[in-house]
Amino acid sequence: MTVPLPCRIEMNKNGTSHPGCVVWLTGLSGAGKSSIARELERALITLGERACILDGDKIRNGLSSDLTFSPQDREENVRRISQVAKLFAEAGNICIVAMISPYRDHRREARRVLPQGRFVEVYINAPVEICEQRDPKGLYARARAGEIKDFTGVSAPYEPPEKPEIELHTDQTTIADSVDKIMHYLMTSVGKNGK
Amino acid sequence: MTVPLPCRIEMNKNGTSHPGCVVWLTGLSGAGKSSIARELERALITLGERACILDGDKIRNGLSSDLTFSPQDREENVRRISQVAKLFAEAGNICIVAMISPYRDHRREARRVLPQGRFVEVYINAPVEICEQRDPKGLYARARAGEIKDFTGVSAPYEPPEKPEIELHTDQTTIADSVDKIMHYLMTSVGKNGK
Repeated sequence: MTVPLPCRIEMNKNGTSHPGCVVWLTGLSGAGKSSIARELERALITLGERACILDGDKIRNGLSSDLTFSPQDREENVRRISQVAKLFAEAGNICIVAMISPYRDHRREARRVLPQGRFVEVYINAPVEICEQRDPKGLYARARAGEIKDFTGVSAPYEPPEKPEIELHTDQTTIADSVDKIMHYLMTSVGKNGK
Repeated sequence: MTVPLPCRIEMNKNGTSHPGCVVWLTGLSGAGKSSIARELERALITLGERACILDGDKIRNGLSSDLTFSPQDREENVRRISQVAKLFAEAGNICIVAMISPYRDHRREARRVLPQGRFVEVYINAPVEICEQRDPKGLYARARAGEIKDFTGVSAPYEPPEKPEIELHTDQTTIADSVDKIMHYLMTSVGKNGK
């Protein structure tokens, strides 16, 4: 039985159209990572791509349920997620990671485990004041009340990426425009020119 | 752009034909887990399914590189792999896990994280004498020489599954026949009757 193939950019050994890669969305809580991840996944699947989301919050309830929010445990959490993202990428997926991942060194490690050009760092940049106004999960309020320790942007640092592949200012652009920008990058830059 | 669809059994929300599930191959080193995993993956992809392999040895070099072979660390290793397998299944994959996983309790935990009917335990059963004759990685020889501690089947226990979904005697059947048996089970039992 043969499978009819849609018009696709290229084929890899898994029979998917796109070489696997990791799209790593980093930014403050409330910056828009999860919303962009969901719409990006939808857009990719509509195009016939294999896409999936690794959500930081969800991983905290499963694979990383044994870890705290100390810097050491955050590092181990990022390490595990980057290893899982790599497995998804190797299976031909565009793996969208949505997690605060506040430390530059940890993100550098996540990049290091992927082949060159297959790690797309996307800085979801919104001022902390805006994120705190949005506060979709009520976490800033709880952090200000002292109920959450080590909360990024309030009582724990966030180190912005120095050279992200993409930077999105979500206080100035719509989710749709943000997704378009990532899609354009994926279509034009990943898997081309030996990347 | 719409994607032409091959003739498929059913569709899930990810646009794949098959509800995700985990096919867990357990058995001694040398029993044939990796060989069967590879051929099963090939057969599934030929049918247009999304399939991937999580290989115990490979995970030991990545996600679980911080763990030893003590019973506690083996348990943590199985826990992590079962969580990753769940993520792959949720993304619509038939996730083939090939790992010794010698303890019944650990496999029970791996089953517990999946919805009912989505964990297919396959006992790759071959007598230890046969596995030791095959010794594809030279590990039995090293274990007998005392170079490897806690080696399953030699100096560490293997607890056979009591009620696996499938049992394969690889000293009596070919790899092709073993794969056919698993394929038949997947086609007829997983995702049917509300499983």
